[in-house]
Amino acid sequence: MIKVVVDCFGGDNSPKANVEGALEALSEYSKLYVILTGDEEKINAELQGKSYDKDRLQIIHAPSVIGCDEKPTDAIRQKRDSSMMAAIDLLRTDDTVAGMVSVGSTGALIAAATLRVGRLQGVMRPAFCPVLPDMHDGVVGICDSGATVDCPPEMLKQFAVMGSIYLQSAFNIENPRVGLLNVGAEEEKGDKLRKEVYPLLAAEPNIYFVGNMEARDLLSGDYDLVVCDGFSGNVLIKSTEGTALEMLKLLKRSIYSSWKYKLGAAFQKKMFSDIKQTMNYQNYGGSVILGTRKTVVKGHGSSSAKAIKICIEQVCSAENAKMNEKIEKTLSLPAENKEIFSKL
Amino acid sequence: MIKVVVDCFGGDNSPKANVEGALEALSEYSKLYVILTGDEEKINAELQGKSYDKDRLQIIHAPSVIGCDEKPTDAIRQKRDSSMMAAIDLLRTDDTVAGMVSVGSTGALIAAATLRVGRLQGVMRPAFCPVLPDMHDGVVGICDSGATVDCPPEMLKQFAVMGSIYLQSAFNIENPRVGLLNVGAEEEKGDKLRKEVYPLLAAEPNIYFVGNMEARDLLSGDYDLVVCDGFSGNVLIKSTEGTALEMLKLLKRSIYSSWKYKLGAAFQKKMFSDIKQTMNYQNYGGSVILGTRKTVVKGHGSSSAKAIKICIEQVCSAENAKMNEKIEKTLSLPAENKEIFSKL
Repeated sequence: MIKVVVDCFGGDNSPKANVEGALEALSEYSKLYVILTGDEEKINAELQGKSYDKDRLQIIHAPSVIGCDEKPTDAIRQKRDSSMMAAIDLLRTDDTVAGMVSVGSTGALIAAATLRVGRLQGVMRPAFCPVLPDMHDGVVGICDSGATVDCPPEMLKQFAVMGSIYLQSAFNIENPRVGLLNVGAEEEKGDKLRKEVYPLLAAEPNIYFVGNMEARDLLSGDYDLVVCDGFSGNVLIKSTEGTALEMLKLLKRSIYSSWKYKLGAAFQKKMFSDIKQTMNYQNYGGSVILGTRKTVVKGHGSSSAKAIKICIEQVCSAENAKMNEKIEKTLSLPAENKEIFSKL
Repeated sequence: MIKVVVDCFGGDNSPKANVEGALEALSEYSKLYVILTGDEEKINAELQGKSYDKDRLQIIHAPSVIGCDEKPTDAIRQKRDSSMMAAIDLLRTDDTVAGMVSVGSTGALIAAATLRVGRLQGVMRPAFCPVLPDMHDGVVGICDSGATVDCPPEMLKQFAVMGSIYLQSAFNIENPRVGLLNVGAEEEKGDKLRKEVYPLLAAEPNIYFVGNMEARDLLSGDYDLVVCDGFSGNVLIKSTEGTALEMLKLLKRSIYSSWKYKLGAAFQKKMFSDIKQTMNYQNYGGSVILGTRKTVVKGHGSSSAKAIKICIEQVCSAENAKMNEKIEKTLSLPAENKEIFSKL
């Protein structure tokens, strides 16, 4: 049995989507056990009239909710009775729990996971690793994209190792192609940090390092994992999302500016809905926090039931693939004795 | 008379577009004097049969060309007889020259401008400042976007001052709204560098600092200038360009995948051409190198004649607005005596 905790509050469609997503996952996977955290009455209202295996679902009452506008470090200290902190407490205290899913405040979740759940042995700092559709039917992970903004070189090497093991475990990518985010492709390019990180990645036997990567090639399909400090990774993912969104808006404004364009768009309805699906990152699951003792998946704030279900599956995939065990083992190996990557 | 040097080689459409752009500018501005650098025979072949004021055009022969794949520091040392270095030499030696335009190697141009043309008094390091259309009929500058990848806090303050004066001078934006590129909007956000830069920008009287800016808001129309170190600025601009390009490709692939979508697109021909124009950064001129003694404008490698002409206009606008003089004066003022911003 795999036990997954679902924080039922904090999202745009909470608790409805959270509860429904959990029930969908429960009905599909007979070896799944779900613990829902949050206001019990509201959760029960959502469960009302639904059929599900009551032996595999449990509710932990936690009446308050951490808002996205609250300062993370204050919120996790002051709102111990929140749905998110109740889930985090289970990760900390219950050894049988595999991980959790939340669609609440990203900052609070990263802070709570880091400070309360604790790190895997050998991990300097956890990393936040979202995965984007690369518009070529593949995905690309960005590690780190904001958990740690000031990083020494060794930390980026750990991000590369953890991210690679994650993409293997959750996306079945056998040898993830790792690119180092940089200002140019040539080996000698970059700032002080990048110049120090490059040889570390090149010498690391447990990753498939393909060299420097420029930001414009993120969606080229040539990389499975981008390694970067949390500051530039955050810039990378937010500018990618922002540009895609502004372009869709521009397209929409343009179509609505003339009856002729609207007429043309009438022939393209399915096309636009397909494009939206290609770009819909909810189809690819949530962002995982790597390096914590339990798997923590952060779904998008506007997650649907289907998206929540995919996040739950991510926790299960990581558990089945023994992701955290592999991370610990790989990081603790002495350099000359590595290469366990494919053997685990 | 304003003297502008045009490096005629190194672009996809060189020397044709470079020469034609120079001639267009010459015919429009009676106070413009243009010096063309490059292979004299090839330049003369382009001039053949064209009518222009021969008293305001000069050619300086320079037979070689710096390629985009050459290592910048090597190229500028070894290819003294290149069209780019001939232009740079004029900037260095001829006091009557206002600036130059090149569409050649960005790396070589930045290196040559920094090392050969020299800095304005008080400038720590030059900055590379491209300006993008923000999809809301405005523009947004990114300073620095790759000239200097390791920056102390004071340098970012200088980027803010230089970028503001540039947007005033070349784009008539009276009080450019300056955002500090960061991982969140709140004041306390960021890495060590951003935490040190924020109070410096907040205390600087010669800029209109509006606070931290997230990468996703680059094209929101809420900012005129983004201040960042060259590493994250490079990530920002390249991911924005890359995403826009990948989205256009996805749209094109989608339209061509069915006769029905193609039929729809037949009604939208003008719309797509308008969108391309909105997004065509060539309409907004080149990227300027700020902080060097003369104005250096880098046009896109694929610049058309029209784009080259706009780049020449940028040098003239900067000269007319006394941009470099303002930068020097503003940076040299003691802190308590600033506020000359609007008075100059």
